[in-house]
Amino acid sequence: MTTLLEEFGRPLRLAIIGGGPESWIGHMHRGAAEFDGMFKVVAGVFSADPARSRDKGRQLGIAADRAYGNVAELCAAERARSDPIDAVAIMTPNDTHYSASAAALDAGFDVICDKPVTITLAEAQDLARRVQAGNRVFCITHAYAAYAMTRYARAVVQDGTVGRLRLVQVEYIQSGLATKLEDGPQNNRLKWILDPQRSGLALVMSAIGCHAQHLACFAADANVSEVSADTAALLPGREVIDYTSANMRFASGARGTFTVTQAAAGGENDIRLRVYGDKGMLDWNHREAGYIRLAMQGEPVRVVTRGDTFLSPELIALGRTPRGHPEGLREAFANLYREAAEDIIARNLGKPRSIAPYPRIEDGVHTMAFIEACVASSSNNGQWTKVLA
Amino acid sequence: MTTLLEEFGRPLRLAIIGGGPESWIGHMHRGAAEFDGMFKVVAGVFSADPARSRDKGRQLGIAADRAYGNVAELCAAERARSDPIDAVAIMTPNDTHYSASAAALDAGFDVICDKPVTITLAEAQDLARRVQAGNRVFCITHAYAAYAMTRYARAVVQDGTVGRLRLVQVEYIQSGLATKLEDGPQNNRLKWILDPQRSGLALVMSAIGCHAQHLACFAADANVSEVSADTAALLPGREVIDYTSANMRFASGARGTFTVTQAAAGGENDIRLRVYGDKGMLDWNHREAGYIRLAMQGEPVRVVTRGDTFLSPELIALGRTPRGHPEGLREAFANLYREAAEDIIARNLGKPRSIAPYPRIEDGVHTMAFIEACVASSSNNGQWTKVLA
Amino acid sequence: MTTLLEEFGRPLRLAIIGGGPESWIGHMHRGAAEFDGMFKVVAGVFSADPARSRDKGRQLGIAADRAYGNVAELCAAERARSDPIDAVAIMTPNDTHYSASAAALDAGFDVICDKPVTITLAEAQDLARRVQAGNRVFCITHAYAAYAMTRYARAVVQDGTVGRLRLVQVEYIQSGLATKLEDGPQNNRLKWILDPQRSGLALVMSAIGCHAQHLACFAADANVSEVSADTAALLPGREVIDYTSANMRFASGARGTFTVTQAAAGGENDIRLRVYGDKGMLDWNHREAGYIRLAMQGEPVRVVTRGDTFLSPELIALGRTPRGHPEGLREAFANLYREAAEDIIARNLGKPRSIAPYPRIEDGVHTMAFIEACVASSSNNGQWTKVLA
Amino acid sequence: MTTLLEEFGRPLRLAIIGGGPESWIGHMHRGAAEFDGMFKVVAGVFSADPARSRDKGRQLGIAADRAYGNVAELCAAERARSDPIDAVAIMTPNDTHYSASAAALDAGFDVICDKPVTITLAEAQDLARRVQAGNRVFCITHAYAAYAMTRYARAVVQDGTVGRLRLVQVEYIQSGLATKLEDGPQNNRLKWILDPQRSGLALVMSAIGCHAQHLACFAADANVSEVSADTAALLPGREVIDYTSANMRFASGARGTFTVTQAAAGGENDIRLRVYGDKGMLDWNHREAGYIRLAMQGEPVRVVTRGDTFLSPELIALGRTPRGHPEGLREAFANLYREAAEDIIARNLGKPRSIAPYPRIEDGVHTMAFIEACVASSSNNGQWTKVLA
Repeated sequence: MTTLLEEFGRPLRLAIIGGGPESWIGHMHRGAAEFDGMFKVVAGVFSADPARSRDKGRQLGIAADRAYGNVAELCAAERARSDPIDAVAIMTPNDTHYSASAAALDAGFDVICDKPVTITLAEAQDLARRVQAGNRVFCITHAYAAYAMTRYARAVVQDGTVGRLRLVQVEYIQSGLATKLEDGPQNNRLKWILDPQRSGLALVMSAIGCHAQHLACFAADANVSEVSADTAALLPGREVIDYTSANMRFASGARGTFTVTQAAAGGENDIRLRVYGDKGMLDWNHREAGYIRLAMQGEPVRVVTRGDTFLSPELIALGRTPRGHPEGLREAFANLYREAAEDIIARNLGKPRSIAPYPRIEDGVHTMAFIEACVASSSNNGQWTKVLA
Repeated sequence: MTTLLEEFGRPLRLAIIGGGPESWIGHMHRGAAEFDGMFKVVAGVFSADPARSRDKGRQLGIAADRAYGNVAELCAAERARSDPIDAVAIMTPNDTHYSASAAALDAGFDVICDKPVTITLAEAQDLARRVQAGNRVFCITHAYAAYAMTRYARAVVQDGTVGRLRLVQVEYIQSGLATKLEDGPQNNRLKWILDPQRSGLALVMSAIGCHAQHLACFAADANVSEVSADTAALLPGREVIDYTSANMRFASGARGTFTVTQAAAGGENDIRLRVYGDKGMLDWNHREAGYIRLAMQGEPVRVVTRGDTFLSPELIALGRTPRGHPEGLREAFANLYREAAEDIIARNLGKPRSIAPYPRIEDGVHTMAFIEACVASSSNNGQWTKVLA
Repeated sequence: MTTLLEEFGRPLRLAIIGGGPESWIGHMHRGAAEFDGMFKVVAGVFSADPARSRDKGRQLGIAADRAYGNVAELCAAERARSDPIDAVAIMTPNDTHYSASAAALDAGFDVICDKPVTITLAEAQDLARRVQAGNRVFCITHAYAAYAMTRYARAVVQDGTVGRLRLVQVEYIQSGLATKLEDGPQNNRLKWILDPQRSGLALVMSAIGCHAQHLACFAADANVSEVSADTAALLPGREVIDYTSANMRFASGARGTFTVTQAAAGGENDIRLRVYGDKGMLDWNHREAGYIRLAMQGEPVRVVTRGDTFLSPELIALGRTPRGHPEGLREAFANLYREAAEDIIARNLGKPRSIAPYPRIEDGVHTMAFIEACVASSSNNGQWTKVLA
Repeated sequence: MTTLLEEFGRPLRLAIIGGGPESWIGHMHRGAAEFDGMFKVVAGVFSADPARSRDKGRQLGIAADRAYGNVAELCAAERARSDPIDAVAIMTPNDTHYSASAAALDAGFDVICDKPVTITLAEAQDLARRVQAGNRVFCITHAYAAYAMTRYARAVVQDGTVGRLRLVQVEYIQSGLATKLEDGPQNNRLKWILDPQRSGLALVMSAIGCHAQHLACFAADANVSEVSADTAALLPGREVIDYTSANMRFASGARGTFTVTQAAAGGENDIRLRVYGDKGMLDWNHREAGYIRLAMQGEPVRVVTRGDTFLSPELIALGRTPRGHPEGLREAFANLYREAAEDIIARNLGKPRSIAPYPRIEDGVHTMAFIEACVASSSNNGQWTKVLA
């Protein structure tokens, strides 16, 4: 059988915005892009200083003439080439996601963007309009929703196995801001992270909360309609928000709980998702990402694992190694890049667009609306507040 | 060394209110009372029908003349004996706890009472006044706080190991009301449980929420000052509350999350406690009650277990079997009965009262205030609401 | 429905041999005997010094005239009473189990005996003859095989769920002898434990190996036919055996592995049982005694727990508290005492003997043959050696 | 700081033997080789049919003139190029590892070889001589020993933390041969695997047992001196060995247990390593590859994780993502390739050879001696048998 890639005849050409040789997330994106041979990284912006960008690009095997000093330059130069890039992948500081995405979209490129998609709901809505207008692919790398087992969670919600939803619980507990980094030496990354203007409305939401919200909505296959939230800085004297906890309501009447913090001293990086329906419940956590517990009322708990032969072909395809061989975040990232590539190629070939559930700009719009509603509720004595998109 | 029991010269005499031969919680209370030889069960009220009460008492080895048909009769008859009971243990339906406790206290007996201590805050406050006036012992059987490892949690909070508190998380997720029991056959227990007038303001809070709140406050060694809560019936058409989730604030500024439900289809009976300070965090769950994780920032996670030789003598004494031999809820219950007995005997001998942290009437007062605040907040659009005691 | 106990009309009267007030295993036996009201502890031998035995008995509520200085005296005096004991429970040093058991059997009493049943195979065979001749009940307290979930393991082996057995793995890894206790202060218990003449052929086998072997054979419902073993003292200079590892063969051709040690510095008390058939496998460990994993080929792993409603009534009856409430070794012990009592009463009432799978003298005979074969194989360069009974 | 790679000036050029586009292990090797940019895959043998090899190579981006039909041709052609390969990576059927390795070594190439290194001890010894004679790098991809946490195990053995070794336990329990694949349809892979002449002396040892033995010796930093083993086919009528269990002795007197099977119906792919010293013990399993338990006698159990900041720089460098983000087998493989590359480059630059503990030909020699000893012991009634290298 001919694959989409074979039919297209060449890998997609990708530019990387941010994520130089020393960046772990850069290595993650680049490796994920090339994991299945769908993309080839050929260009990028690795520094605002053109010489520095070229030097970093060289270390990554990027030709000198395709390592640019800014996105505008990249877009212009690539559009002028006979072999231009197809897409950009953005992993710069939060407050630049919007402008870089907008520029790339306007230049006719597809976008893979790290979270948070933007700083405001209005910006996300603006990107959504541009994506739609240009018939672009816009993939947000919420990789936690690209593990085979979080996909399984969504599948058994969608097929009715767990029944009508009653409750969704998501949490993301981390120690990334557990100490007063504000009082220590500041590298570039810390500088923008600890600046509320640059990291976003609520730092913890930009950093990890958006992942948690997306995962909950993804698995529940439903958006949040209202929140009653508490946002706070758990460290005395801290100016950025490092904690948010919210009660949630879905349009169906189902309830939800949402708790995220980066101020958990001693904590690791624990994401947990639970979905409760009227027939049974699901329990997944990131430490054991390859497993999920499905407990149906009155039956023994089942522990399902990536690689189980009874899974659907779509789910099995998300794993790359035999059952029982650990995979990690890398494979989840690679799943997103493969899905984005398949959607890009399908469109380019004039075929029906992909229905793969990679996170899209519409998801990003809901995330930003969720964040704004949490902040508003918290400012309004915890009152229930509508999520406006 | 002479023990308090030896000095006192005889076991305390206990009457059981409720909890007949077929009741698992009755077996639990009776076994816990006699576990260390501190109490001897000698009397009781096992039915409102005197003959039936006598018959049940006979199966439990209770003399016919000490199996009564109601509490008033028990109090009167026992006070008239030369060998009266010292204490009563109450495990009747929720709406009778107050009256039975009040009667026993007024008759000069000490009380061990199952939760919830009362139906209203006012009742709990009234009991507190009677306890204080009579210098009585009043022990509420929140056994989850009597495991060696939940006691350890409190110890490392109190001694500063985990530092200044930032966050406390407690949850109790259960399937006890996961199906619409209202539509099935009703036994006596179900009848009063499903009657909001008899089970309390919010069923889930009376049934399990009070345990969760107590455990959180016990471990944090702090009361909740404000809540922003959502109470609901997750089952359509249900009249009783089967779900409560609340954001919490402590006087210190620390935050908390509280989530309880009995509507978790497929769920088991999962209580989890996490306490986060500025130096590290604790993580305990009921399934692995004999273990607790203490994660100090920058250090390897430690898994502490009941029986570890480095624990304090007070904590070691809470275990009854060598390290690595599972204990259960029974031993936790027995710890409470032993502590209550030691306090009773200490007072009776004119010695200083015990400082053992068994749950007391003051804890019950806070629990009822917490429940009332949750209900009020939920009725008031989730707004932050003060906990009034 | 009338229970056996009600039909019999009174609890069985039990004498305790060993296990005074300060002994944790004594507390365990006494509590387990009275747990369900099947036995009442009325007599005992708590010291070879009669006055000391009486004093200890008094602390346990034993009448002065029924606290004896030795087993012979107990047997004689009890036989002469109008209300004699029905049974004895033996928890003295290993080398006295045989003589105490023999004396009790000869006096017409039933026996509950802690492990190891004897020091030699010949002694165990001798006891088996006396048990059979006297139609006595002889229960060995291998409590690990009395958890609901180890009983479940046997059930799904017996009913064919896991298919024809391929492999059985058992291990018991403990730190009880991890340090050179020989070089430290010696209490009475240590003195006999560290004396190979008194603790048995191979200390680790008497202490914990017998439990592991019994559990494996119990779950597999099969005896071991041959072993190839390595016994050793892992601590240099130690005279007693603290380690045994054996390959095993069953008559069916199934294989087995057996590893026990008390020299695991840092270890806890970890018993693990795995049974593999041609359809699936079972995995149980003592830390999570209330759960078992059943993994059927091609299906999701199932985690079964005590209290699951789909279990057989026999298995459900082994639990005493609702699903999700931890139970411990105490309830497992109580299960054995209840089964022994029911067998005693059934015989006394002339009813068919119980088929409950409590460990019997025949199991003890196989255990002693297994131990002797391991020692012989190890002495014979690890060669396969037949288990002679 | 200039890296070795920068100093060398270009990635090493690698040829792949076996492992075409449809092979998961091929994807693993290729991805691992290029993971850190140390290697570039430029040539290969993907089929004995030259046209087919070229077609597969094309899918992998290999130039047509560098996709060969056999190893001899590859060696000859590459030696004649101005830009020849530096190394070959071998992932063909077991019985071809020896000849391919020998040819590559003789042609002056370094070798990365999947396990088992050969079919016989003599072959492995022959390769060792060629490696030494040519001053080559020979890396065997036992990736389980390249997780940060198995490296940590070795580190705390080597630095004395766990003390003098008493016992090492390793097991690898898998369902790869749980059903009678012999009776079903046979693909190419199954055909050679199920042929004892091609898969090796004992299939289970070639497939997974060599991994387990290597991991045990790696962590213990010691070779096995003697074994008493049982090899068997657990499936009736099976001609290949699917089970081996052995007692082990190390030169130091320490004991070991080794159990591997591929016939565990319902099993997954479970590798577990435990190392016991006189101060404490280590416990690691593959499912939770990012964590290890270190239990020191008398102290709380510590759970160490990849990414812990107190780890040595060497161990931290083995992780690629922040603490708490799952990694998998892929990163472990990449660690081996990076270490092999660094050793190759160091030698090429005339620098001291690397001391990184990637598995070398000497380890492969010991593995083959271990396998032969297990088979010999099992054939000799389980008697202790010396491991001859």
